[in-house]
Amino acid sequence: MAFKIGLLGLGTVGTGTAKILQDPTGRNPLLQTIDIHRVGVRSLDKPRSVKVPSEVMTTDLESIVTDPEIDIIVELLGGLEPARSLILNAISHGKHIVTANKAVIARYGAEIFTAAEEKGVYVLLEAAVGGGIPVIQPLKQSLGVNQIHSITGIVNGTTNYILTRMESEGGEFADILADAQKLGYAEADPTADVEGLDAADKIAILASLAFAGRIKLEDVHCEGIRQVSAADIAYAQNLGFVIKLLAVAKREARVATSEPESEMLQIRVHPTLVPQAHPLASIHGVYNAILVEGEPLGQVMFFGPGAGSGPTASAVVSDILNIAAVLKTAGETHHLHPLLSCVHQHYCSIAPISELVTRFYARIMTKDRPSVIGHLGISFGNHGVSLESVVQIGFQNELAEIVVVTHDVREGNFRKALAEIQALEAVDSIPSILRVL
Amino acid sequence: MAFKIGLLGLGTVGTGTAKILQDPTGRNPLLQTIDIHRVGVRSLDKPRSVKVPSEVMTTDLESIVTDPEIDIIVELLGGLEPARSLILNAISHGKHIVTANKAVIARYGAEIFTAAEEKGVYVLLEAAVGGGIPVIQPLKQSLGVNQIHSITGIVNGTTNYILTRMESEGGEFADILADAQKLGYAEADPTADVEGLDAADKIAILASLAFAGRIKLEDVHCEGIRQVSAADIAYAQNLGFVIKLLAVAKREARVATSEPESEMLQIRVHPTLVPQAHPLASIHGVYNAILVEGEPLGQVMFFGPGAGSGPTASAVVSDILNIAAVLKTAGETHHLHPLLSCVHQHYCSIAPISELVTRFYARIMTKDRPSVIGHLGISFGNHGVSLESVVQIGFQNELAEIVVVTHDVREGNFRKALAEIQALEAVDSIPSILRVL
Repeated sequence: MAFKIGLLGLGTVGTGTAKILQDPTGRNPLLQTIDIHRVGVRSLDKPRSVKVPSEVMTTDLESIVTDPEIDIIVELLGGLEPARSLILNAISHGKHIVTANKAVIARYGAEIFTAAEEKGVYVLLEAAVGGGIPVIQPLKQSLGVNQIHSITGIVNGTTNYILTRMESEGGEFADILADAQKLGYAEADPTADVEGLDAADKIAILASLAFAGRIKLEDVHCEGIRQVSAADIAYAQNLGFVIKLLAVAKREARVATSEPESEMLQIRVHPTLVPQAHPLASIHGVYNAILVEGEPLGQVMFFGPGAGSGPTASAVVSDILNIAAVLKTAGETHHLHPLLSCVHQHYCSIAPISELVTRFYARIMTKDRPSVIGHLGISFGNHGVSLESVVQIGFQNELAEIVVVTHDVREGNFRKALAEIQALEAVDSIPSILRVL
Repeated sequence: MAFKIGLLGLGTVGTGTAKILQDPTGRNPLLQTIDIHRVGVRSLDKPRSVKVPSEVMTTDLESIVTDPEIDIIVELLGGLEPARSLILNAISHGKHIVTANKAVIARYGAEIFTAAEEKGVYVLLEAAVGGGIPVIQPLKQSLGVNQIHSITGIVNGTTNYILTRMESEGGEFADILADAQKLGYAEADPTADVEGLDAADKIAILASLAFAGRIKLEDVHCEGIRQVSAADIAYAQNLGFVIKLLAVAKREARVATSEPESEMLQIRVHPTLVPQAHPLASIHGVYNAILVEGEPLGQVMFFGPGAGSGPTASAVVSDILNIAAVLKTAGETHHLHPLLSCVHQHYCSIAPISELVTRFYARIMTKDRPSVIGHLGISFGNHGVSLESVVQIGFQNELAEIVVVTHDVREGNFRKALAEIQALEAVDSIPSILRVL
């Protein structure tokens, strides 16, 4: 039994995928049953680092997703359209889908999985989160019997690379971003990475798997790393922390509501002070890591390359093999493998960020008056914000720089206190507000 | 479709497994199709922290593995016999097997998998390595398209706990072992853990999966941590290393042989100097971690609790669900899922440890003569051992303590040099010889 795939896109990941499929020697023997039947590209003339027979290549992507001979469509185009329409069209033609497209899945997952469920086909997406790190399949299978409490991840390599360099070199964000762009670690338009949008897509996907419900992407609170300054990184270091862009999805038992057992999730992406001894603190450069906490499991962490042609292709091809293996096992029956299919239909309830309870770090610029720390303390106290430390670090342009770390506080209260502080005559500005893990 | 399991053993892991199966709420819905049909124990009178109806319990384990109603036997007895015979008997009665028994699989895997292949049943063993950490299934599936170059793991929690405490407290092995036994982190008979035998079982299993061949356990070179002293840990720290008991399986291209493409593996367990910046250096206490390197993947690491009732039970139950899911998908067909079954029959060639090329650390006690470092240097040079550093650390009982770190050297040559050095009149003893990662 052989399986024919239609490959959409022959960019970085598509090329890596074709390379693995073309040289299956010494790898899983099941690879030899996979045949690249068609490859869809935008331009036939572009030079390629992988050899594909010209009769296999086409610019007519529609003809691939409707080709009756093809079993599995491998969507590696990226972006929202035409990826979404091609995936839906492929599903309607009974094709299984393998995709690395976190943006499409995070936004149109509901539509895509509903269609797949109706047609009885698989949609696998190991490569969409964490590049080559196996995390989607372990969440579905190996960890599937756990009640997941939280997922905390460094899931964007570009921002972790920038933060790592800011930490080791003491440089400012804009300079290191510019250098990262030159070196190819950041894109010309870095918005999706540095604003945290890419990480938000990924944590929405992970949360959906971990908590078995759909996630509306607009419910994910998202802050990027543009506001993180060299000063914050240095102060964090002194306090025993490193700053990481964390993507967090967490189950929250709500004791305060009248509804019994109402359960809310927190899902958020923001720069965070991480204690230096925490496993995520030592994840450097473009590496990704995903920490899963659950019951009865405790903590497990998956670490590896979050991007790159080879690693991401490794994940893509493992999904292809998974589908091939299951199709082989199932023979002529039409039962979907229950651990590979995705059937939850309800949407998860996501708590607004104002209800988050966390510790905060804030850097406040004040006119140097003897009483200013007293005033800050009073304003925080007015809103029930209890302080762990208040340190006047030094002076900048005749302003005093004060760093505050709070105990656990409800975010809404903290924001009200900050609004009051911002209005104080002695306060110039509050350049940084970061959460503490 | 429901599945009936027969549970052999109701110790720590068996109890954890029963608890997950008895309370499937909020977990994978597939759990509700699993029914604990029989439980086999040594004594019916023992008090249990999990409630099992008395009519389900029996001391007649043979009657469970031959019960025609049972689909899956879950072997959690540990030890070699009767576990091995029960597994083989269950297979001959067409039962699928889930086991956490690394000792049986490492020794009798060939016999067990051959029997399973003949009968068309699965033998899954996620819990045998790394407790709750998903590593067996990712190796078979998510990483299955990679050519694995090496697996390097901290796979024994007891020894990592002891080494971590020796490092943080500066204590000696024997004292901390005694305390670990009191606290329940080490067994009354600690041999299997501290001599590295448990780690050897586990790396043999991982190597077999990664390199798709059978491993003879006697080919695994194994050294424990008894020889590691507080002094070694302190010197290692000064040199920028921590000492870890590593289990290593590595592919080795042999350039020197006449046979074309002959491939050998190195498989070994020994205390190792690990650079402080290496991901494995920061794995503390009873945690386990497994680092996999391959092509095109690069590096991925799996980290988590290597033992314990809940985590290990999580792995056991995930195997049960995997089998249930595949049986459901396959319906009445009798195709085995190619990524879950194990069909390789040949034995891997394992290089003798004398052919290993590695860096070494050695601690040598000498009578304090001015020329002794010169004599050491000459003896090392006689056997082609190039030295990275030679440091006279201090004095102990009128003997000088000299620490040597070599460049890469063939182990056989290094041993010959040591034998020559041991025979020098100025040399008293060589209390520690450790490899460097």
